[in-house]
Amino acid sequence: MSRSFNVAVVGATGAVGIEMLKTLETRRFPVKSIRLLASERSVGKELLFRDEIVKVEKLTAESFAGIDIALFSAGASRSREFASAAVAAGAVVVDNSSAFRMLDDVPLVIPEVNPEDVKLHKGIIASPNCTTTIMLVALKPLHDLSPIRRIIVSTYQSASGAGAKAMEELKNQTADYLAGRPVVPEVLPHPYAFNLFSHNTTIGENGYCEEEMKMVNETRKIMHDKTIKVNPTCVRVPILRSHAEAITIEQERKVSVEEALEALAKAPGVKIVNDAASNTFPMPKDSNGQYDVLVGRVRDDISSENGLSLFVSGDQLLKGAALNTVQIAELL
Amino acid sequence: MSRSFNVAVVGATGAVGIEMLKTLETRRFPVKSIRLLASERSVGKELLFRDEIVKVEKLTAESFAGIDIALFSAGASRSREFASAAVAAGAVVVDNSSAFRMLDDVPLVIPEVNPEDVKLHKGIIASPNCTTTIMLVALKPLHDLSPIRRIIVSTYQSASGAGAKAMEELKNQTADYLAGRPVVPEVLPHPYAFNLFSHNTTIGENGYCEEEMKMVNETRKIMHDKTIKVNPTCVRVPILRSHAEAITIEQERKVSVEEALEALAKAPGVKIVNDAASNTFPMPKDSNGQYDVLVGRVRDDISSENGLSLFVSGDQLLKGAALNTVQIAELL
Repeated sequence: MSRSFNVAVVGATGAVGIEMLKTLETRRFPVKSIRLLASERSVGKELLFRDEIVKVEKLTAESFAGIDIALFSAGASRSREFASAAVAAGAVVVDNSSAFRMLDDVPLVIPEVNPEDVKLHKGIIASPNCTTTIMLVALKPLHDLSPIRRIIVSTYQSASGAGAKAMEELKNQTADYLAGRPVVPEVLPHPYAFNLFSHNTTIGENGYCEEEMKMVNETRKIMHDKTIKVNPTCVRVPILRSHAEAITIEQERKVSVEEALEALAKAPGVKIVNDAASNTFPMPKDSNGQYDVLVGRVRDDISSENGLSLFVSGDQLLKGAALNTVQIAELL
Repeated sequence: MSRSFNVAVVGATGAVGIEMLKTLETRRFPVKSIRLLASERSVGKELLFRDEIVKVEKLTAESFAGIDIALFSAGASRSREFASAAVAAGAVVVDNSSAFRMLDDVPLVIPEVNPEDVKLHKGIIASPNCTTTIMLVALKPLHDLSPIRRIIVSTYQSASGAGAKAMEELKNQTADYLAGRPVVPEVLPHPYAFNLFSHNTTIGENGYCEEEMKMVNETRKIMHDKTIKVNPTCVRVPILRSHAEAITIEQERKVSVEEALEALAKAPGVKIVNDAASNTFPMPKDSNGQYDVLVGRVRDDISSENGLSLFVSGDQLLKGAALNTVQIAELL
């Protein structure tokens, strides 16, 4: 690949944006030039890219002249406001927000799961919600063995999903708690130090929160199967940057643990961590900073005929966001 | 009840033992005299009971002369070693360990669920594992509406289940982490600060750990139904003293959310925390120090015909251990 690209990163100063820059570097993405875009507040900040200082510019509709690929991670409302300007300027947008994920003419892509969908894009490609991505990297190889009919998943989600400020809040609140000072939530709605709470998105009429319905709907779109049933419970735990998930699936036929582990061992983006003797399984401390999704505790579901249970952990900022977005850009 | 009892607390200086003393006080249990027993290491320590200083004595086979009720919470091996001496001395043993739970002639009792089983005791009554107790307080009223056939549960377990030292370890490690000092696990097998890990009990041949199999087997015994299928995933999260659990059940017939909430509202030991508008559901910070199990997020399981999902949080040291043990003693 000798071609190189003019790349814009929208939301460059956020937790995901910073990881995007690092990921472009470490994966040696063929960047010809880089433009860092953010809101007014961050203009003039300087970030390092390949040992060069790059100034953050203000995001406007005119920011995309000459840009080939625009990586968006500045929230759904900014994506809705500026993505069409980027496309009009001739850029392909890879969007990490929820703005376009469920639109029929926008492919929703996990490169390990449905890379071929990238080709269908009309200017915008969406990267899924972090919990969906981490789950499906682990489930796709099992789905290929025998179609998954039902998924029951409980998440253990980190602060990073709510941004850099939420990560700071968790650390500051925890320090306050340990020092006996009052804990005052500002970014997230509930005290977070040594506490957990149901995911802080709006609860819909069916009793599921937006985060949970993303897992339901995005799974069906990415797997190209509207009949897969998904029941998620999304919970924020006092962890900094990796999500973990306890997953139970039901498949069309019984897949053995051995067969599942064999398929997972060959699967891209998966690292098996499954040492029963030392009680070592996927943990956030081990997935932090890693590209792979850690998968373990693969066992028969003792409550159903054709079931398997497993436990996964993946870096929310990387595979959950920045890495997946850059990987999509690589497919282009 | 004008009768009063000579009570012994075995393991009086442990995290659960201390809560047992407080619970005996706050529930005005008719204590005639109290004897605090512990291992050599704690002998001579002084604890306050009803404003009187009580010295901790060494636990021996001779410790139980004159004792009516002996509350054991000093681990399974101490229970195995000393419970028979207590029974021989004429005491009724209420045991919080796993030593006798699955024996046919030992009732396993949650007072809100199967109080009648207390009558069947032959000297020893067992109190269930904390995760089982907290789950079944919430599930019994639903089981009464329509028999539960299957339970899929993911736990979010606190440090307290591993004792006072694990709670200290979590606090110390977290302070170390925040100060940039190395984190060295001593009590629990993995770093705990801003991390989570699969429950630290031995993994059996079927891939489930001991903690998980306790939930399977104890549920069947307490509910008097060996056909209930249970699939647990037990996980330790960096929380100090409350367990939370994400539970999905399948019942013989479809129970509506309204019907479930109505039954839960009347159920003993349950407090409904289910405010979707303010996104307020059961949280460890709210169940800490509470007798009731908090229950919320009650919703249709969108992945099955006759399913419901819910989220619970309960104080591991109280309803999970000390309170349940004292409540059993009250039934006597």
